[in-house]
Order: sequence, then structure tokens, then C-alpha cells
Amino acid sequence: MDIRNKIRIGVIGGASPEPEFRQIAYDIGKRIAEKGAILVCGGLGGVMEAAARGAKKSGGLTIGILPGISCDDANLYIDIPIATGLGYSRNSVVAMNADVLIAVDGQYGTLTEIAYGNIYGKKVIGIGTWDIRGVEKVETPQQAVDLALKDFFPLTS
Amino acid sequence: MDIRNKIRIGVIGGASPEPEFRQIAYDIGKRIAEKGAILVCGGLGGVMEAAARGAKKSGGLTIGILPGISCDDANLYIDIPIATGLGYSRNSVVAMNADVLIAVDGQYGTLTEIAYGNIYGKKVIGIGTWDIRGVEKVETPQQAVDLALKDFFPLTS
Amino acid sequence: MDIRNKIRIGVIGGASPEPEFRQIAYDIGKRIAEKGAILVCGGLGGVMEAAARGAKKSGGLTIGILPGISCDDANLYIDIPIATGLGYSRNSVVAMNADVLIAVDGQYGTLTEIAYGNIYGKKVIGIGTWDIRGVEKVETPQQAVDLALKDFFPLTS
Amino acid sequence: MDIRNKIRIGVIGGASPEPEFRQIAYDIGKRIAEKGAILVCGGLGGVMEAAARGAKKSGGLTIGILPGISCDDANLYIDIPIATGLGYSRNSVVAMNADVLIAVDGQYGTLTEIAYGNIYGKKVIGIGTWDIRGVEKVETPQQAVDLALKDFFPLTS
Repeated sequence: MDIRNKIRIGVIGGASPEPEFRQIAYDIGKRIAEKGAILVCGGLGGVMEAAARGAKKSGGLTIGILPGISCDDANLYIDIPIATGLGYSRNSVVAMNADVLIAVDGQYGTLTEIAYGNIYGKKVIGIGTWDIRGVEKVETPQQAVDLALKDFFPLTS
Repeated sequence: MDIRNKIRIGVIGGASPEPEFRQIAYDIGKRIAEKGAILVCGGLGGVMEAAARGAKKSGGLTIGILPGISCDDANLYIDIPIATGLGYSRNSVVAMNADVLIAVDGQYGTLTEIAYGNIYGKKVIGIGTWDIRGVEKVETPQQAVDLALKDFFPLTS
Repeated sequence: MDIRNKIRIGVIGGASPEPEFRQIAYDIGKRIAEKGAILVCGGLGGVMEAAARGAKKSGGLTIGILPGISCDDANLYIDIPIATGLGYSRNSVVAMNADVLIAVDGQYGTLTEIAYGNIYGKKVIGIGTWDIRGVEKVETPQQAVDLALKDFFPLTS
Repeated sequence: MDIRNKIRIGVIGGASPEPEFRQIAYDIGKRIAEKGAILVCGGLGGVMEAAARGAKKSGGLTIGILPGISCDDANLYIDIPIATGLGYSRNSVVAMNADVLIAVDGQYGTLTEIAYGNIYGKKVIGIGTWDIRGVEKVETPQQAVDLALKDFFPLTS
């Protein structure tokens, strides 16, 4: 299993999303796994948990970058919890560890991750999230994941 | 000198602002000092330097929260450089150490600070910066500093 | 593959060890993999690379907690690089993400990891490293890995 | 007031020292202020508080680099609290922001700061603390502060 060279897609979003966005995050996670990419997220609840659950449903690999000092804080669908002890500053680390980001819903925490994604030169795709410069809007989970992978698999798209 | 109880106003903004915004940042820094508040900023160039220069012009105190590991990186107008070694993640620390924030111009780094300000429950005021929820827009340096101090000196405003 | 519940053993040590310690780190990494544990390290050269190479030789899984902002900094034997952007402060994160630590050789960076291991309540085992309180000295890679796993597999030891 | 060019002496040590070491830390803080240097510490209790109290007794300036996200956590003798939100990883930042360090008593937290001091190329002086390479042992607060300042005021020593 060549984990090192797989594409990593970060899914960012709120801990308390509307049910609609939980479903969207789940579908995105599922597609990420089906495409053979790794899911990176903040490791906690809400959008993070829904995306990880979707990814595991399709047999994917999930990394959770946590704010606290204990890996036990991760949701049940995280394979590789990474504790940082950085509190909210860990949002920078989430963005750093993804090749591309998909934002779903979300408040100010998600906004930091959108901004860090842009600082670190990552494409940021959004569904139902902050409508600002630096976010490429899409409508569906399929569009989100396809756009996320476009730059990495140009020959087959 | 009772430094501990002075209000701290964070001025955030780009390292390469248009000349117009450099002047605005300078004027804001000057007013912050005149009101007896402490200026907190990221300690480097552009808006950060202009604001610190303004604050020093009026005899104020300036704190610079730096991304690198050396205090020598601070601009000439910083009294108290604080190295963090956190790189871009230090933006979270800038927001954490101000009682209220004023954003001037700025790109994605400023956007992280606007978002962190909101996460940490600080009012964020803006001139010529991101026009989003979580930023109270004003037009002039005077309005910015007056609004920044309003919550802290209610009896005299 | 149940990655989440595997024991994580951190191997810490210098970037420029004597050849003798490189071999010891390699042997430790190999045994870690043979025992079904995950190797956590700082992801760079020297002891970190030798241990990761040993772990991969035996088909293990390796996590590298990096100081920089790019996963590309990791050595060739790291499956899951995690960028932190924290510089030397990432040493705290290495200690945080292991269940138990084995120190091999090493200078002051290793000393920070030994100290953080103790702060976070992890057992710290040492070969040819700092001879101080908080380090349980052993002589061989086998003793190191056996002692590391003792608390986690009490029924079979 | 030229704060920027003053020497910064970091005093590191435990949060729960024996009374003897609290007195030593207080005397060190007092001497630091008398010599016109700035005290940098971790901002909390024990050795940190005693040293800051001593420095304020002699009219000095004190900086406290805090682990939490609120400046309110600082002890009463800190003029300039700096919140970091880094938890124990802030120990690296304490060492980074001092020109020279004096360790008094202390456990593993102090050990991380001694190690980081050495990583960042700072002289580390110790009284009743870890007896290891990288710590220059002295017997009295006067010796500690004199040795700390020796490199910075060579013409007058």
C-alpha cells in the first residue's frame, strides 16, 4: 500500500452543521475514498465526523489533526489521529497537510482554514460555505471531489 | 506605569499595502497611542510597521508577535518583539493577544486574523479590508479607534 | 486494517548519529514493525530515518511529525508525513503522538522529547542517550522494544 | 524608555518549588531589575511568580509567556502577558524570547526549557536544578545574574 503518494483531500467545516451539510460531508468523504485519496480533517465532530464516516464506509484512510494533546479525542472514523496541543491554531496544520481543501458549511474556524489553504497555495473548493475570494464554489459532492482531483490526475480527467 | 491594565488594540493587515493604507495604518497607530492603548501587531513590514511607527510617534508602546524564532526580525518601531517560531500559525497568537482588532487592507493572512479574532470573541473593525460577516466597517482611522475603545471606556465615550 | 488501535512507539534521536546508533535505530524500527506497532518519529534524517527504514523493511507503518510546512521534507521511509510548521516546537508533538518513546543517542532536541514524554506521562526508554531521571536505560534494541510494549500487552509478555 | 535594547533574562523553574527556591527566584528577579534587564518567564506560579515579584519590587519590567489563550492567566507581577495557546509547547517560546536563561529547581517542564535554551544558542545557568551538560551551575542569585549578564556587558564586568 503506497500511502505516501496518495492525494490528500482536506474536508473542513463546522462541528455543528445542519443535517443537510452532514449528508454532503458524508458523500464527499465516500467519494474521496472511492477515488483512492486520503481524507484529512480536524478529527472532531460534525462535518469532520461525517466526512470520515463516509470515507470509512468506502474503505478509505482518514487522518484527523486534533486541537488537544490526546489522540483519544478523535471521532470513531479516524484511522490516524494526530494530536497537536495547539488549540484553534491547529487549523493552520489541517490546511498544511492537505493537497486540496473542500469546505462544507462552517463558521470562523472554517474561515481560518480557507484562508490558510490559500496561504499555503492549496485550491479551496466550497459548498454552502463562505462566499469569498479564494473559494471555488460547487453545488454537489461529486463536483467537489472531481474538481479537487482535477489538478492531480490531468491525464485521465 | 501600569502596562498590564492598558487596552491592547491589534492592527492587522498586509505586508505590502498600497501607500494609501500605509497612511491609514500610521494614523490608527498614532491615535491608539494618544488614547493610551497598547498596539499589538505582527511585528513585520507594511501595515504592521506603519501602525507601529505611528504609535511610537505619539509615545505609545508596541508589541510585535513574530512568526520566526528571532526577535531581531521585528521592525524598528516595535518595543517588545515576541518571537513564536510558529510561521503563519502565529496569526492566531496575534488575535489572541489583542482586546480588539482593526484590519487595514490585507490578504489571506489578514483573513486568518479576522477569523481568529471572531473565534476568540474579539470585535474586529475593518478599513478597506475583507467585506465579510465578522468585520465592522468604518471609513476613517478616528472611527476605527473610537469604535475599538467604545466597549472599554463606556463612561467617557 | 485496524490502524487506530495499534500501539505507537516513538523513536527519537539525533539527525547525525554515529554509525553504531544508526544501526541500533534500524533494528529498533524493524522490531517495532515485527511486533505490529506503528513507528512515530520526527520524519527527518539520522536516527529518524534509520528507524523508519527498519520499520519499512519489516512491512510496518511509519508516521513522521515534521518541523516544516511541507510533507515533502519527510525521509523516504515515512508513510504518513505530518507537517506542523512549528520548527523545534514540533518536538512536543512527536512526544504527544507516541504511547511510549525510545531515545537513541541524541542531543538537545532529543532532550526536549525525553522531557515532553515525561510531561505527557509516557514511558521513555533510552539507549546511548541522556542518562537522567525519566529515562529507563536498556542495552539492546530487543530490550528497548520489549520494554516499550510491556505495559500494553501484559497478558502475553 | 528604550525597552527594545534591554537584555532579557529568562527565569525558568517549577510551579510548586520548595520555599527555599521561591526565595532564590525572588532574589534573582530583584537583581535582574536592578541591573536594568527585563525578566521573561512562563507567567504562572511558583518560580515564575516569585521571580516576577522580585523584579517588580525593584521596578523592573516583566514578560510572561503563557500556555493558555487568555492573558488573564498571568500572575499579578507580570506587566506584559503574552498568551500563546500552545500548552506545554509554549516552553519553546519562553526559551526563544530570552537572551540567557536561569533555571531554578524545576521538573520536566524546566528540562524542556533548558534543552530549548541550548537549541536556540542561549547560555543556561542553573541553581538547584537539573545537573546536566548544557547547564552552568552557580550557587547564589548574585552569581546567577552576574554570569547571565557577563556576555552582554563585557566592558564593565
